Amino acid sequence: MPRSDTAFLFDLDGTLVDSVYQHVLAWKEALEREGVDLAVWRIHRKIGMSGGLFANILLRETGLEITEDRLARLREWHAEAYNRQHASSAIRPLPGARELLDYLTAQDIPWAIATSGRMATAAANLEALGVDPAKVHVVTRDQVRHAKPDPDLFLTAARRLGVDIHQSLVIGDSVWDMLAAQRARSLGVGVLSGGYGRGELQESGAFRVYDDPADLLLHIDEVAARN
Amino acid sequence: MPRSDTAFLFDLDGTLVDSVYQHVLAWKEALEREGVDLAVWRIHRKIGMSGGLFANILLRETGLEITEDRLARLREWHAEAYNRQHASSAIRPLPGARELLDYLTAQDIPWAIATSGRMATAAANLEALGVDPAKVHVVTRDQVRHAKPDPDLFLTAARRLGVDIHQSLVIGDSVWDMLAAQRARSLGVGVLSGGYGRGELQESGAFRVYDDPADLLLHIDEVAARN
Repeated sequence: MPRSDTAFLFDLDGTLVDSVYQHVLAWKEALEREGVDLAVWRIHRKIGMSGGLFANILLRETGLEITEDRLARLREWHAEAYNRQHASSAIRPLPGARELLDYLTAQDIPWAIATSGRMATAAANLEALGVDPAKVHVVTRDQVRHAKPDPDLFLTAARRLGVDIHQSLVIGDSVWDMLAAQRARSLGVGVLSGGYGRGELQESGAFRVYDDPADLLLHIDEVAARN
Repeated sequence: MPRSDTAFLFDLDGTLVDSVYQHVLAWKEALEREGVDLAVWRIHRKIGMSGGLFANILLRETGLEITEDRLARLREWHAEAYNRQHASSAIRPLPGARELLDYLTAQDIPWAIATSGRMATAAANLEALGVDPAKVHVVTRDQVRHAKPDPDLFLTAARRLGVDIHQSLVIGDSVWDMLAAQRARSLGVGVLSGGYGRGELQESGAFRVYDDPADLLLHIDEVAARN
């Protein structure tokens, strides 16, 4: 039996689109409106979890009570601030992102996107990337039970593609993607384009770390067989 | 002869005030207006150099011609975007920053601030920090010949304090602070509050790395003698 192709399961923000820093400052604004004073770098280090889990953890760490009302307000204020940023300066695909996806498609290598965001915020990013969710497998937070660093999103993506998670790579910019990859017994490939350090990704189990999608495409033979 | 006290030479943005991410997105906006399309994380990794040197390097790396006009426009657009961010959401001191400076003052440990920014942008940050530049030694980019990672700023700060640079610590959040510390044969102490990874700071020569000023104050006996 021939070995099956390696599948690529992508995170979205910071991995395919250049949106992490805008999300970080949008969360900063939302938290400030709620009276939570948290340094920006600490928000950056939690990004990549889902908004709900992320807000839970931040509230717990700052000792504030976690109520449904508060979480709903934070989500709403974040979306409002993010969309304002989005309007003043467009979110762009990261260098090489489109080329990498086109390459995989041309080579018949299965790929999917698994994002901690909800479809409401992910839609504009997918459009910028030229990805039509009617034609490509895109798993969003609203479609699974558990958020990253639980591997639920990536397991669901592999299932939809009909591929073995043990034959898949998880491509992500954050520590949470790399932890989820390990928990799923997949291999994590890190990219620096979300603004985390190489050491942080390696310590959380990245099999390889590249600058961005362009750099990954340049070195793709290191992680997957070329057909 | 008794050993002289260790002096503390501080960087400002990301080290004492929580302003790095706002600077990053302000540069993103300025570069975009100039037609330079650069991923946000790459801007983040250059921040901490002076604006002039930083713009030089970015333009060189993107292959654009470096002209005085272009640099002046970028500086102006950055200041405009940064001050807009500043107006919508106040720049805050990092946790423990004021307490750390107060502690050093109370202990008669000499300290100064050496920033890559110009006084025009630094003034608001110093005010947020409660530092009066008429009473405290503050060296800005306009007052020295060479920008970080040249050690000129820190050497000037030590000279103004009347302390030996070899008895000084350089406290900074960026790789450029740590490189400047080494070039001056000072010791670099890193803080994570500018959003760089621990590994990046250690690899550029940090003697110790703390979360933020509060964490440094908690562990101050590790780097300086208590009186």
